[in-house]
Amino acid sequence: MSSRPLDRSAHLARRARLAVLLGGRPALFAAGAPSPRNYAASTFPFRAASHFLYLVGAPIPGAMLLVEGERATLFTAPNTAADALWHGAQPSFDELAAQTGCAIRALDTLPEALKRADVATLPAIDLATCAQQSTLLGRTVRPGALAPMDEPLADAMIALRLANDDSAVRSMRTAVATTTRAHAAGMRATRPGVRESDVRAAMEREIVADGGAPAYGSIVTVHGEVLHNDVHHNVCSAGDLLLADVGAESADGWASDVTRTWPVSGIFSPTQRAIYEVVLAANRAAIDAVAPGVRYRDVHLVAARTIAAGLVELGLLIGDVQSLVDDGVTALFFPHGVGHLLGMDVHDLEDLGDRAGYAEGRTRSAQFGLSYLRLDRDLTLGMAITIEPGFYVVPAIFADPALAQLAAGRVNRDVLARYADVRGIRIEDDVLVTESGAEVLTHAIPKSVADVEAVLGAR
Amino acid sequence: MSSRPLDRSAHLARRARLAVLLGGRPALFAAGAPSPRNYAASTFPFRAASHFLYLVGAPIPGAMLLVEGERATLFTAPNTAADALWHGAQPSFDELAAQTGCAIRALDTLPEALKRADVATLPAIDLATCAQQSTLLGRTVRPGALAPMDEPLADAMIALRLANDDSAVRSMRTAVATTTRAHAAGMRATRPGVRESDVRAAMEREIVADGGAPAYGSIVTVHGEVLHNDVHHNVCSAGDLLLADVGAESADGWASDVTRTWPVSGIFSPTQRAIYEVVLAANRAAIDAVAPGVRYRDVHLVAARTIAAGLVELGLLIGDVQSLVDDGVTALFFPHGVGHLLGMDVHDLEDLGDRAGYAEGRTRSAQFGLSYLRLDRDLTLGMAITIEPGFYVVPAIFADPALAQLAAGRVNRDVLARYADVRGIRIEDDVLVTESGAEVLTHAIPKSVADVEAVLGAR
Repeated sequence: MSSRPLDRSAHLARRARLAVLLGGRPALFAAGAPSPRNYAASTFPFRAASHFLYLVGAPIPGAMLLVEGERATLFTAPNTAADALWHGAQPSFDELAAQTGCAIRALDTLPEALKRADVATLPAIDLATCAQQSTLLGRTVRPGALAPMDEPLADAMIALRLANDDSAVRSMRTAVATTTRAHAAGMRATRPGVRESDVRAAMEREIVADGGAPAYGSIVTVHGEVLHNDVHHNVCSAGDLLLADVGAESADGWASDVTRTWPVSGIFSPTQRAIYEVVLAANRAAIDAVAPGVRYRDVHLVAARTIAAGLVELGLLIGDVQSLVDDGVTALFFPHGVGHLLGMDVHDLEDLGDRAGYAEGRTRSAQFGLSYLRLDRDLTLGMAITIEPGFYVVPAIFADPALAQLAAGRVNRDVLARYADVRGIRIEDDVLVTESGAEVLTHAIPKSVADVEAVLGAR
Repeated sequence: MSSRPLDRSAHLARRARLAVLLGGRPALFAAGAPSPRNYAASTFPFRAASHFLYLVGAPIPGAMLLVEGERATLFTAPNTAADALWHGAQPSFDELAAQTGCAIRALDTLPEALKRADVATLPAIDLATCAQQSTLLGRTVRPGALAPMDEPLADAMIALRLANDDSAVRSMRTAVATTTRAHAAGMRATRPGVRESDVRAAMEREIVADGGAPAYGSIVTVHGEVLHNDVHHNVCSAGDLLLADVGAESADGWASDVTRTWPVSGIFSPTQRAIYEVVLAANRAAIDAVAPGVRYRDVHLVAARTIAAGLVELGLLIGDVQSLVDDGVTALFFPHGVGHLLGMDVHDLEDLGDRAGYAEGRTRSAQFGLSYLRLDRDLTLGMAITIEPGFYVVPAIFADPALAQLAAGRVNRDVLARYADVRGIRIEDDVLVTESGAEVLTHAIPKSVADVEAVLGAR
């Protein structure tokens, strides 16, 4: 990461916009501390908090940024001799000032600088840093809990980060380029007899080689019906579909999030292909529905209706498309939302909960399926979102008495039994909201049956 | 991991030995919780606390193990419908009981079971779980701090884990097998023009494919003089040595820890080869010194003397070998300890601090270099350790006035200047203490100049 010069002007501009939104009110941002894995000195790779990274660009463990109107001061610990021995030469305060455009001060001078009582903050991701924020500000700061005095700061950060600037879009394109290579490598590595972990390894190799990191726990599974499957030990068999939900985070901390589903044998069976085409149609219809001003929930419903229509066509669902969607029957096979915000976090701004994902006055539905919709805002220019419809046959759903009741007379179990070689399919793209509607950032990752089979055929 | 059956009898035997050591006194072990990366639902891969994993085998997030004499009860949250939807079918309490040999109870019955006042515990690695332990036990439990009443439990776990049982050794051999493949892949992937991250990616691919994880942050660098280098963006040039300190953790949580240093071009330069042979001689001499009853500090000093003798031979150090070691001059080039305990943690048991690494009555030296020795016990049967001497030219050391003073008249700077193409070399093996002395678990990873050059020559 230190190999890439910071986009200093972008970060200066972000801090300037923030100062305007806050009317000069001071705000404190914590980079956070590395999280221990086995013991204090054995940590997970450090990932600075997204709000901090968005405004500073450099992931400096333990650092704090104080924004006061046009003045931005970065507080960090001075380098020690042990740092130099164990971690090499670190940038001096002057070098850091030149890189970031912030004034740099020693971390131990921060309490003095915070003597004003009305400094807003956002909770760090790790508890150790939250404890530090609590001490510094003399009030309780904890993850997932926003004090009323911090709400305007949260809203300002949401407003800023929803409208991705040029620098953000460039970084997302970098993440997508890596992810594109990862999916190509995953397809090439797939053949009957390999384990899911072999394919995952081939995909993550591309990400690590590019200096990035997986933006989230990679899902690479022949059991796509487990939505957040985190095991990778199964062997891929010729009749399986492999679902790979793998996205790179760029070295500067921007996420991509892509799912493809491909046949291990290289050729979709007729049943797999039939359902795949339904999901693909939903993916395309939802992307076509994306435009500034459109309510995201409606994009979800476009996908749901497309799936319902396709499944009615196959005889798998019975009834009127709109009723199947309205009554939540479609959600038996498509139980999650069509997507979410994307940015520095794979579910962008989810540290702020539904305050980020849901427009004021909108709340989550209580209905099964729709309750998992993570985003219900009107789309605006520069917003980045995922579009990821899916089809799953989840045993737990059909084992649930209430949900099984919902299926009665509307799901043709005999027809469903014919699709036994389809357990889970998802097709997910990253989409930028543009004036003309939508730009699919992930367009280069094979998606049509013909394109996927062509890549697999060339293994 | 769920693909591999638990070695239930090994875990039963460990719990039985623990009960004996504790004289029936009850003890509580926490698995710990996943650590958030960006936000609550985006976590780092879950790694259960080593003490818990050692006794239970299964990494169950949020679970607690209560050992009371011969009775072991595992407390865990019952599965929910949402678990089944998002994470797939989880083992039932009966299945878990059969797998682990523990009685299984719902987590919310734990407070009732803890009503005895004298339950010992060890602090979890994550703060959230420590807070939970504090609430459950009605006293402060925090990482790195051991209450006096918990010290006997710490000592019991140290005694158990220092004497690796057959199951532990099998797991370490599995980790080493993966690491052996990783180093071979790293050597194959190295050539002038690739980035460090390309080599790291090739190595970690083998680890991920085997269902493991890096046991620690991989160091893959042409700047081996930075001891814990965590950047990977440099391009490898023909004249560089590449230092790779990369070890796999097996799927069941056992670490390996291996460093090799190889020439990017495929052939050591004469100067690189000369220093490499000195470090290799130290590695071999230290391994030869390993035997039950030997004090580990003496193994370190064997390595230090071997390095001093080699550097005197090259004209790089001036003076008497023993004085060069005693006075800390050798530490200018070999500033760290010769190794550490190895087990479930890469620095095994380091969550308990020097209580694990240092025998009673022994403390860390204040001398530069020796102060970084992590282990000073008499070696005992079944102990696993690393042997990892090195040679580094660290700018920060020679920039330090006190250390530069130490070098005056003892380091020949003119000779040192001739070795400018050597910045950092380390050769690290994993060693098991056996009746006959030492078994080098990592023997299959090329180490001699001839073996390393042969692998590189076959690229």
